[in-house]
Amino acid sequence: MKLSRFFLPTLKDNPTDADALSAKLMIRSGMIRKVASGLYEWLPLGLSVLKKVENIIREEMNRIGGLEVWLPQIQPKELWEETGRWGIYGKELLRLKDRKDAEFCFAPTAEEVITDLARREVRSYRELPLMLYQFGTKFRDEIRPRFGVMRAREFYMKDAYSFHANEADAEATYGQALNAYKTIFERCGLKFRPVEAESGLIGGSFSHEFMVLADTGEEEIVSCDACPYAANKERADCPAKAGDPCPRCGAKVVFSRGIEVGHTFKLGTKYSAAMGATYLDEKGQKNPFVMGCYGIGVSRVVAAAIEQNNDANGILWPLPIAPFSVIITPINFDDPKTKEAALDLYNQLTGHGISVLLDDRPERAGVKFKDADLIGIPLRVVIGEKGLAKNQVEVKERKNPSAVEIPLGEAVPHLLKLLS
Amino acid sequence: MKLSRFFLPTLKDNPTDADALSAKLMIRSGMIRKVASGLYEWLPLGLSVLKKVENIIREEMNRIGGLEVWLPQIQPKELWEETGRWGIYGKELLRLKDRKDAEFCFAPTAEEVITDLARREVRSYRELPLMLYQFGTKFRDEIRPRFGVMRAREFYMKDAYSFHANEADAEATYGQALNAYKTIFERCGLKFRPVEAESGLIGGSFSHEFMVLADTGEEEIVSCDACPYAANKERADCPAKAGDPCPRCGAKVVFSRGIEVGHTFKLGTKYSAAMGATYLDEKGQKNPFVMGCYGIGVSRVVAAAIEQNNDANGILWPLPIAPFSVIITPINFDDPKTKEAALDLYNQLTGHGISVLLDDRPERAGVKFKDADLIGIPLRVVIGEKGLAKNQVEVKERKNPSAVEIPLGEAVPHLLKLLS
Repeated sequence: MKLSRFFLPTLKDNPTDADALSAKLMIRSGMIRKVASGLYEWLPLGLSVLKKVENIIREEMNRIGGLEVWLPQIQPKELWEETGRWGIYGKELLRLKDRKDAEFCFAPTAEEVITDLARREVRSYRELPLMLYQFGTKFRDEIRPRFGVMRAREFYMKDAYSFHANEADAEATYGQALNAYKTIFERCGLKFRPVEAESGLIGGSFSHEFMVLADTGEEEIVSCDACPYAANKERADCPAKAGDPCPRCGAKVVFSRGIEVGHTFKLGTKYSAAMGATYLDEKGQKNPFVMGCYGIGVSRVVAAAIEQNNDANGILWPLPIAPFSVIITPINFDDPKTKEAALDLYNQLTGHGISVLLDDRPERAGVKFKDADLIGIPLRVVIGEKGLAKNQVEVKERKNPSAVEIPLGEAVPHLLKLLS
Repeated sequence: MKLSRFFLPTLKDNPTDADALSAKLMIRSGMIRKVASGLYEWLPLGLSVLKKVENIIREEMNRIGGLEVWLPQIQPKELWEETGRWGIYGKELLRLKDRKDAEFCFAPTAEEVITDLARREVRSYRELPLMLYQFGTKFRDEIRPRFGVMRAREFYMKDAYSFHANEADAEATYGQALNAYKTIFERCGLKFRPVEAESGLIGGSFSHEFMVLADTGEEEIVSCDACPYAANKERADCPAKAGDPCPRCGAKVVFSRGIEVGHTFKLGTKYSAAMGATYLDEKGQKNPFVMGCYGIGVSRVVAAAIEQNNDANGILWPLPIAPFSVIITPINFDDPKTKEAALDLYNQLTGHGISVLLDDRPERAGVKFKDADLIGIPLRVVIGEKGLAKNQVEVKERKNPSAVEIPLGEAVPHLLKLLS
């Protein structure tokens, strides 16, 4: 992509109305813009990161047998009344009436609709287990939307739901989903921790939150270095302060902070029993489905990645979710030799399937360097007249303070090696 | 994909509440299910077709320089009041109030939000032209939702918006968009026609509708065989009956029917002038953006493709948007030799990157054949004991009445050739 043809409205200064580091950086880097409280536009740079996260999630959900569906966002009140959540959910549920005064909500989650689907379409234990998932826009009418897209009202979510003939099968799939989630966040290049958590409005017997670790995180995590124990501090049975004994092994616990980006729930028969959603077992007996559900806040992952990976100059994208892998920064694109070398490098790299941003704007080098750092592209190649006179270009990793000089002819293999 | 692990609830009989051929076939083939009036669930088979259409559209939008964004679906009343559409749009606009009683709508289209974005972020003619597009859920509260997903209330749309410094540039991009649309529908394998049309609630000076040709289509098209003239019959200046003179060349016009799947508009300055969205020209003067907008009803394309391509037994998918390219139908999957041959063929084809559905269900052959025809997979391979005894399998193209016997060892190259 040539920057002159891209839409990248970067800002020199922090927006005054952004209240989180990631929100500031997403607005400054031209990833998002705010339309109204809790409502954001995702611009091309931001959307490309979101799509990379989405694709990683989709691949791993498919790998554990998930089947992608697309469920309505506007859902009838009647279904939500069957589980009682129409009454319980409160003002976070955006309720609305259609032209005939029938009542609906903008779905914040889809347990009712998917349980209704299984109730109508799944008859026998032979059709189980079944895991359905979707990507889509969700709405939660937060009383105080904040932290940019991290606690927005409209957000992008992957929600998955599984149906089982018994607890053991539900347990097995739950374990697979936990592993898939670990793979997803590893593949995104993030430091994270799965923790035991409360189930909140989704309910059910048991849940895990996936936390992206960041000092700025809203959630407090209690964990143990001597065993895998980790829990959200909100959990009633968790140790109260650092140094308290681990409930599993008795060693001393430590505290850290994180941002919740995923949540897995063992639902049991909470929804299926309430809605009369049953299958026939081997003996021809009706039983309610045993269920699980598995969410990832895709748009929140993007913000959490920034909270974890940044410095004073801007974002440091982990390579797997970076909007571009390489940025080429010609000092003066009007210089014919610079232009030729820059375009040649651009064509060679894109020919290798590398995503490259070429900063072909008529801006001062300082402006280009600042923007490259701000938007956080992992590798930067600077091409200037001085270097070219020595047949050299400068390669700098965003995460390293210093650059290296590379012979022009070795730039492509050098970059490919850094990216491999 | 192995059918035993897929979610494919096919029906023997037509649903009683479906009022269009495509709606009946989409429900029977397990592509969609109805949740409420005008609200549908897209099941895995349906969604895979939708995603194929989406990907073709995305590639062609990118090719003409389109940049993908994601705009809020819930949009503030204030923006819609700036253009007067809050008042004009009537009951088709789904209006709602948030917890603070602020008014919003569920966007049926996004001219106001995108014009507001350009107003805030685009300053100079040097940043033009700019083409932004998105995929997303739209809502139109139809007074009488019908024809399944063709006139649903919630639907999936690609909407694109372009900004220009002058009419000539807007014309040039409009021409590019028309060509991109032609490429899109050609790549989808559909017979279609672009026609001149009225502009309706979107407004502007000029528009084209893209019609997928089908005898069951709602729209009547007037066209001329002697020149490229084609228009929607709703257009005021179009000939009234077959045989009337073509307004371009005087030859006799003919009538045909179609389904509108895309609409391109030259908006001029309708939105930018109303919203004070301006750029600075070469002389430093403020001018309103000249705009275009370009929609495709992605979910409607899927239904229209079925209206055009079907027979008494079910759907006949054009290969580029077929959910799977090949279905392997073992007569009796419990027979060890049949199973081995079927799995071997499945692995070889998927190894070549072909999408294959293997019907490994313990169903009678007749049930499997009926489902294969119903869901419309372009190529079917039948593997049975009798054929295997002669070392042969049967290959049938969905569109052809007769099958051919092929030696088992030649099945893969034969299928690859048919798919190329």
